Amino acid sequence: MDKKVSIAVVRRLPKYYRHLDELSSEGVARISSGSLAVRMGLTASQIRQDLNCFGGFGQQGYGYNVERLRDEIASILGLDRRAKAIMIGVGRIGKALLYNFDFRLCGFELVRAFDVSPDSVGRSFGGVMTAHIGELEEFVLSERPQCAVLTLPRENAATMASRLAFLGVKGIWNFTNVDLHLDGAAVWVENVHFADSLMTLCYRINE
Amino acid sequence: MDKKVSIAVVRRLPKYYRHLDELSSEGVARISSGSLAVRMGLTASQIRQDLNCFGGFGQQGYGYNVERLRDEIASILGLDRRAKAIMIGVGRIGKALLYNFDFRLCGFELVRAFDVSPDSVGRSFGGVMTAHIGELEEFVLSERPQCAVLTLPRENAATMASRLAFLGVKGIWNFTNVDLHLDGAAVWVENVHFADSLMTLCYRINE
Repeated sequence: MDKKVSIAVVRRLPKYYRHLDELSSEGVARISSGSLAVRMGLTASQIRQDLNCFGGFGQQGYGYNVERLRDEIASILGLDRRAKAIMIGVGRIGKALLYNFDFRLCGFELVRAFDVSPDSVGRSFGGVMTAHIGELEEFVLSERPQCAVLTLPRENAATMASRLAFLGVKGIWNFTNVDLHLDGAAVWVENVHFADSLMTLCYRINE
Repeated sequence: MDKKVSIAVVRRLPKYYRHLDELSSEGVARISSGSLAVRMGLTASQIRQDLNCFGGFGQQGYGYNVERLRDEIASILGLDRRAKAIMIGVGRIGKALLYNFDFRLCGFELVRAFDVSPDSVGRSFGGVMTAHIGELEEFVLSERPQCAVLTLPRENAATMASRLAFLGVKGIWNFTNVDLHLDGAAVWVENVHFADSLMTLCYRINE
């Protein structure tokens, strides 16, 4: 199977995974592209096209095997590899993620958080120990986390991102609302821009 | 000026706004499409195309007036209208937003939060008072908020969304990771799917 798929399809995969996992919990074993389409707000032909990128999984008039398709998508996304991740900045957003967000579900094991505040360093939040940021280099070089969650104040975001790229971190999940420019570094940045999303909503309701 | 623009352009507008606002704070009065492109990771021709949707603003060889363009984009997005918003669910994610997120910057005045927990009801977080969810109907009918921030447990998301749609709320900023289906209702939903974003990152670092 060719795992090279377009970015648009990749961006839809987590949504497929989410819905298939829900269907599986609901005890649904098979689903037609039509029913899946209604549930996901897509068209049946869009779904058939997307899933054909991975060699199909459907049988004409018989539908998709829910669990098999879910597991295959999990494997394509790499969710079963449980890569190590670290968090930089244990403020309110960091803590909200530590307490509420299921990193394992998304393919990561959050192994350590880092901060400078004496209120956080040495303490554990949501089962993750916080170390002083001065220990970052040693930790990363020995544990080799592949991903860093950036939840520190925005004025320190760019410097920290370069430091992480230099240390060989491959992915940054960026909550700082700063566009990071890491040209030349082999780092993939996923931005969570709360504000952009709410501004889009603002446009919509004023339309 | 025709304010009807494509969804792709609308989705880029907050990013333009953010960069222009930063440039303005840095004291930059004018910027060429080329320099803005480098800063934003777009091409100059993409930028010229986007901004032409709103009648231009640039002069050949002279660049864009940073403040004027920023203010015009703010006005197109409706950020200056300061619509009322409410929050449903004051757990960790709700509180993280109340304490850290600047709703005014995104065009909204967060006027009231709602919860059921005695730990939250009657208390103020980040300057926003929390009322009991039983007071929702009366409040919405008298204050007419246009937007609701959904930060309640996912099992209650669908029911609450229908209740809000019935009450005439026009936009939902959805943090529950549930795809809401409000067919027939004139409600725009903006989803913040943390998990989808991290799963995409997972794919990228495993590629």
